[in-house]
Amino acid sequence: MHPTIEWKDGQVVMIDQRRLPLEEIYLELHDEDRVAEAIETMVIRGAPAIGIAAAYGFALGVIRLKPGADIAAEVDRIQARLWETRPTARNLFWALERMRRVFETGRGLPLARLQERLLAEAMAIDREDEDICRRIGAHGAVLIPDGATVLTHCNAGGLATAGYGTAIGVIRAAWEAGKKIRVLADETRPFLQGARLTAWELGRLGVPYQVITDNAAGWLIHTGEVQIAVVGADRIARNGDAANKIGTYSVAVLCHENDIPFTVAAPISTFDFSLAHGGLIPIEERPAAEVREINGRLIVPQDAAVRNPAFDVTPARYITAIITERGVARPPYESSLAPWRD
Amino acid sequence: MHPTIEWKDGQVVMIDQRRLPLEEIYLELHDEDRVAEAIETMVIRGAPAIGIAAAYGFALGVIRLKPGADIAAEVDRIQARLWETRPTARNLFWALERMRRVFETGRGLPLARLQERLLAEAMAIDREDEDICRRIGAHGAVLIPDGATVLTHCNAGGLATAGYGTAIGVIRAAWEAGKKIRVLADETRPFLQGARLTAWELGRLGVPYQVITDNAAGWLIHTGEVQIAVVGADRIARNGDAANKIGTYSVAVLCHENDIPFTVAAPISTFDFSLAHGGLIPIEERPAAEVREINGRLIVPQDAAVRNPAFDVTPARYITAIITERGVARPPYESSLAPWRD
Repeated sequence: MHPTIEWKDGQVVMIDQRRLPLEEIYLELHDEDRVAEAIETMVIRGAPAIGIAAAYGFALGVIRLKPGADIAAEVDRIQARLWETRPTARNLFWALERMRRVFETGRGLPLARLQERLLAEAMAIDREDEDICRRIGAHGAVLIPDGATVLTHCNAGGLATAGYGTAIGVIRAAWEAGKKIRVLADETRPFLQGARLTAWELGRLGVPYQVITDNAAGWLIHTGEVQIAVVGADRIARNGDAANKIGTYSVAVLCHENDIPFTVAAPISTFDFSLAHGGLIPIEERPAAEVREINGRLIVPQDAAVRNPAFDVTPARYITAIITERGVARPPYESSLAPWRD
Repeated sequence: MHPTIEWKDGQVVMIDQRRLPLEEIYLELHDEDRVAEAIETMVIRGAPAIGIAAAYGFALGVIRLKPGADIAAEVDRIQARLWETRPTARNLFWALERMRRVFETGRGLPLARLQERLLAEAMAIDREDEDICRRIGAHGAVLIPDGATVLTHCNAGGLATAGYGTAIGVIRAAWEAGKKIRVLADETRPFLQGARLTAWELGRLGVPYQVITDNAAGWLIHTGEVQIAVVGADRIARNGDAANKIGTYSVAVLCHENDIPFTVAAPISTFDFSLAHGGLIPIEERPAAEVREINGRLIVPQDAAVRNPAFDVTPARYITAIITERGVARPPYESSLAPWRD
């Protein structure tokens, strides 16, 4: 039930999220370069899951070092390789910085001890994530009215985390608390995380859902079908501006215009307190092929130009609440988030 | 250059819009039932084009009648068959009512004379549409700033009309007037009219464009890339509320929130003055397979439920201007549209 990522027999094993929901294929990754490629090509995606993958990749890289290697230089190389995989999700850098601190603290230890410590840290990041998500779920479930239809965008579920989910963690906790809810899942072009991954997860959980095209969300909000929106985040600035999957900004504006609460669920590791506002968050442009093709078949004219911004930033003024493992923050976020600054 | 629909050798010929842009296949339709099926299955789509197809279908049905047939009963049957194909576009009913009037006026004429008159009327509807679109284009081009990036949703182009387009007619007229513009085309799930049809048309016209996912439109509006949005319409109530392809409502709200003009281009035949407001416009739900599959391949879990509302209604308060062949209407529409009521 936790297929996202695990450490097994000295390898990182993850389900190939590009093939879901029609095929459940597990990949075994033997070195940090394969882990980096898996992050780049979205075998694994979702901010917390990217962080966990990077942590395992870091440990794996050091574990593969031979006695006599220039450890400091190799660690720099391993970290840099993983660091450059994707630019937006804060959790990637948070996890790598955490691994780096373990390395720095353990400098001078025998390589075998260092390897043990780094693997233990990656496993801790993995294990803690599920606990964090369960706490996010518990805090957030309170906000979901019994009988509600909940809108979500992209996949902030078990597949985007160690296994429980952030936004879907909230939905799941409300469902497990006995609330009769249902979910509208935006299909989330171009990668179709909603149609493929959120639908697959909700089906396994037994939560009733319907998949809708992204452009139907606004209309269904407007006609009164939606009582609350819950999404994840890839990076949150200290004023509450939140980067998340492209289309999140639109959902937030449409909720705002129709007086529907729009909430963001994310661990503290997603916050970037060094950024004053969301305009400073780097937005990844992904390969054109993701828009041009679906299932490998062209959907535009051969010579068509496309754009593929993978994320957007929702200004804090559209966000009703930010749900974290430490509780629920409300506007103004500059002050409500401040206590969680480490 | 006008492949949408034509009358040729006693048949209705149309390009199969389901196969574009990768294949250009023309279908020859021999009776009104085939024309009705072509409308239902979206071989041809777009409100004005549906009207033209229905008019030709009506004429074709009567042309196929044998001497001695119960003409009045047959005409009722032909009209009913075409009437029930799709519920939202006003132009369908407008065209059938216009054909019906020709039939009523010609009652008692020999069948051959009646057939001639009906075919002449359908051809007039076809021919007039292009003239109307050119006038819409001329009125609308003035609103497009030189150097603008224009956002459009779905396809309101030559393929949705007799050949020039409404929203794309406006873009085209601005381009032909020498304005340096470019277009962002929403791909428009589920049927991908933007990715497939608008891109194909703009490519043929030489107008620079980029295809974007529907959920990227809001973000690109917000970041200042878009100077104006132009869309078509399927039915407009007398207060200016406008039904159009699902997702149009969202584009309108996102333009409104970001102070970008949102305009609708449509012929007078799209107006339904009998309706006080857009809440009275019937919204078609299309088959689930359109959302569940792309190019015949499932994109959701096997047992996934989906929703597929094909249209939405944009409240008049979000519409900056409605561009018609008679000029540009501005709010309040109840009064600005009134002179065009026939």
